[in-house]
Amino acid sequence: MSDNNRVIIFDTTLRDGEQSPGASMTKDEKLRVAKQLEKMRVDVIEAGFAIASPGDFESVQSIANTVKDSTVCSLSRALNADIDRAGEALANANSGRIHTFIATSPIHMKYKLQMNPDQVVEQAVHAVKRARNLIDDVEFSLEDASRSELDFMCRIIEEVIKAGARTINIPDTVGYAVPEEFGHTIGQLIQRIPNADQAIFSVHCHNDLGLAVANSLAAVQAGARQVECTINGLGERAGNASLEELVMAIRTRHDRLGVTTGLDTTQIVPASRLVSSVTGFPVQPNKAIVGANAFAHESGIHQDGVLKHRETYEIMTAQDVGWKTNRMVMGKHSGRAAFRSRLEELGTTLSSDKELNDAFARFKELADKKHEIFDEDLVALVSDTRATASSEKFKLSSISVTSQTGETPVAKVVMMIDDEEQSAEAAGSGPVDAAFKAIEAIANSGASLQIYSVNAVTEGTDSQGEVTVRLENGGRIVNGLGADLDVIIASAKAYVHALNMLDANIQKAHPQV
Amino acid sequence: MSDNNRVIIFDTTLRDGEQSPGASMTKDEKLRVAKQLEKMRVDVIEAGFAIASPGDFESVQSIANTVKDSTVCSLSRALNADIDRAGEALANANSGRIHTFIATSPIHMKYKLQMNPDQVVEQAVHAVKRARNLIDDVEFSLEDASRSELDFMCRIIEEVIKAGARTINIPDTVGYAVPEEFGHTIGQLIQRIPNADQAIFSVHCHNDLGLAVANSLAAVQAGARQVECTINGLGERAGNASLEELVMAIRTRHDRLGVTTGLDTTQIVPASRLVSSVTGFPVQPNKAIVGANAFAHESGIHQDGVLKHRETYEIMTAQDVGWKTNRMVMGKHSGRAAFRSRLEELGTTLSSDKELNDAFARFKELADKKHEIFDEDLVALVSDTRATASSEKFKLSSISVTSQTGETPVAKVVMMIDDEEQSAEAAGSGPVDAAFKAIEAIANSGASLQIYSVNAVTEGTDSQGEVTVRLENGGRIVNGLGADLDVIIASAKAYVHALNMLDANIQKAHPQV
Repeated sequence: MSDNNRVIIFDTTLRDGEQSPGASMTKDEKLRVAKQLEKMRVDVIEAGFAIASPGDFESVQSIANTVKDSTVCSLSRALNADIDRAGEALANANSGRIHTFIATSPIHMKYKLQMNPDQVVEQAVHAVKRARNLIDDVEFSLEDASRSELDFMCRIIEEVIKAGARTINIPDTVGYAVPEEFGHTIGQLIQRIPNADQAIFSVHCHNDLGLAVANSLAAVQAGARQVECTINGLGERAGNASLEELVMAIRTRHDRLGVTTGLDTTQIVPASRLVSSVTGFPVQPNKAIVGANAFAHESGIHQDGVLKHRETYEIMTAQDVGWKTNRMVMGKHSGRAAFRSRLEELGTTLSSDKELNDAFARFKELADKKHEIFDEDLVALVSDTRATASSEKFKLSSISVTSQTGETPVAKVVMMIDDEEQSAEAAGSGPVDAAFKAIEAIANSGASLQIYSVNAVTEGTDSQGEVTVRLENGGRIVNGLGADLDVIIASAKAYVHALNMLDANIQKAHPQV
Repeated sequence: MSDNNRVIIFDTTLRDGEQSPGASMTKDEKLRVAKQLEKMRVDVIEAGFAIASPGDFESVQSIANTVKDSTVCSLSRALNADIDRAGEALANANSGRIHTFIATSPIHMKYKLQMNPDQVVEQAVHAVKRARNLIDDVEFSLEDASRSELDFMCRIIEEVIKAGARTINIPDTVGYAVPEEFGHTIGQLIQRIPNADQAIFSVHCHNDLGLAVANSLAAVQAGARQVECTINGLGERAGNASLEELVMAIRTRHDRLGVTTGLDTTQIVPASRLVSSVTGFPVQPNKAIVGANAFAHESGIHQDGVLKHRETYEIMTAQDVGWKTNRMVMGKHSGRAAFRSRLEELGTTLSSDKELNDAFARFKELADKKHEIFDEDLVALVSDTRATASSEKFKLSSISVTSQTGETPVAKVVMMIDDEEQSAEAAGSGPVDAAFKAIEAIANSGASLQIYSVNAVTEGTDSQGEVTVRLENGGRIVNGLGADLDVIIASAKAYVHALNMLDANIQKAHPQV
């Protein structure tokens, strides 16, 4: 890198983030998130694990074909088939990267790989060389680095750099590192490896003890110049280092950390909302940077104090991270062009005319009922259109149910299954329960409901409800989304969407980096 | 302290946590949380800011009168009236602490206090002495310490220790510190202040950059022996250091940090759920320790790896922090004694026979409709009873509304206002909107809806819905809660509960520590 103080932001929301139970995304959803990441000027987008499933391959390929300004990366084990498949998915990328990995801890080498250290080095070198034959930009990760021996890490890293790896990633796979210790390890590696100056050192921290951001920053202070992170800190278990916290800490405390990123921070809040909406994972109000309360002050004194004290650190304001004070409001007189252009500003370009037409028709329908349409309404509308668009087998035709104190609600549902109309009635302990039972009476999926949540996506009493339904069936977990002014109808739509996602039956392998 | 490696856990969920916009708690809710904190063996419970309002005073007093095993603390400015009021609230405490503070940064001294440094030292010393006349255990905080001059901090701390302060707290008020820097500051203070060995040093970190836990641990490594923290990281803006992350990092990485706490960690998840339920603040699935996914692994390899690697660090398991694999299930045949005893195990002792009877009646009603009653159902039941109990002015008698695709829903609501029955009908864009409009047609509160959220509190399709409604009126923000098998009825209950909370019209002052 020409600039030694520039930290590369490597976003793995679409790979490690998507591995969270319940956070699966469709190809279209991934593409939408990738476009937002590009707009935010993320340096590297890890788009998936190409060999994991045909769906993952298509997602990586479609992102590689679309995104131009960010490097698009696919994960691959240190196996020929994996590397070739990654190369294939990235063939048309403007800037592509293959990220290959192998475990380097004694326990993983012995039990998982059943290989001795010499064999592991040999396979790593072979994998890096094979990847370099397909693409210039190759990253190598030491899986389970936090439990690997320092001497062995030095040895394998020196060899893979010689073989052509440009980025060396050290993950804290179990999320148990503490900052001083982790920074020390990174510093040792950079100091001891003779050809360390020929590669960028990267870290990938998990948040099991709430220290992922601090560990990443300690590594940067020790010389790492790439951080792997996710929007909203999504990721397996307690998630990965949160992109928004890392980027804003680097920016706000430039005085102390002395490094920069290339991000457009005003795209952070839109990115957070998009990822939350697509995965159905809420962001708690007290989440740093992107939580609803993050910039809510009880009194003006403190903000004033910060403003008068610029010399110590850069001030972080709500506007810097994309919180809008005046949100654009649309109404029934807004036209199709304004609708499309606002959606694009929100990072949600529709991929076909049909999708645009569907969404616009719903927008007009909503505008008839609702006075002012906020940005969040538009995002919900699009989620809903996408939900319908990916529906194949099941379609909701109509539903009716009454809530009355003292009465047992009975839902009447009409659905299309493979274009055949079917109907059912069911009583339930509440109207949502009755609706779900009636739908199940028709669909017979056998799935169990794990999470049911509703959020009113805009302020005011005529809020549009967005419902997330998480279903589990045979070990597979999916999140269905539905949006409607009527929360009961939104719930039914979300349930049907989840059934369609279960029907898609995606199979994939999940690595542990 | 006799044990130099014991870190005192000071929980401020009920003081700083409660200052989060929308997180206000009633006296009964605070008492319930305090009992759970005591059960978890928190060392110090900051119960409130006694002079802020009569409600705050009563909360502190009632907690001081009830809690025996933890020290109960009240915040107070360095003013005679504040200190006397704190002392009065703590008069019957088994172990009480007055926590007094004054700003020490040049900007706060000049603009907020309009005092010179000598006057600030004098007032601090006077406040500590006055507090020591009322109680043995006095803590002194340097408000806005992160922007204060080191020399001045040394001077004022030395003087307040001489005056009798036993604990010296250094807050990172703005949440902008980074670990290495913050640890250095704490180390400098302890090293430079001649009588530093006569007090415990404490830190109070905010999480604006996601570094509150790391900053607290850096301070502990530099010699601090008290950490101020909150359940779920609740608190102003992005919140405070999260108790669960701090405690589990200290425990898991004892090898590196070399300190311990006295906490019963198996009470962490129940505490997290109780606070989330009482405040209506959700916990995101990827939150460390207490998030739904925190211990969800996609593959068994990693867990296995951890188990084989005990030597490096203490393993953290889901059971250690109170996640239950087999949750007690109650049903229609469970009796009143079992019901009460299970509630007590869940940390929610009911304060009167009337409350118990109300809750038990609801339990029986629920058991008639719902096959298995989980712990979460019980917690929701109690929240609902409490919601009803604190209702004074408004009571919901009945509601009826139909959801049907293609039709505009009309809600019919009957309510009691000050024991006078009133009814109204209103059409809305959805059944919840219609219900809220009908309630408003009767109540005429003029409040605006800020957040509407629903969670199904248990798994399965016959989930009980728990609804949070956040209303704002004239700058005041309240969260209303309602639980019912019917989500529309739960919504109406939550709205009415919020109206009653607005009606209570609590006024309070909020300090900035």
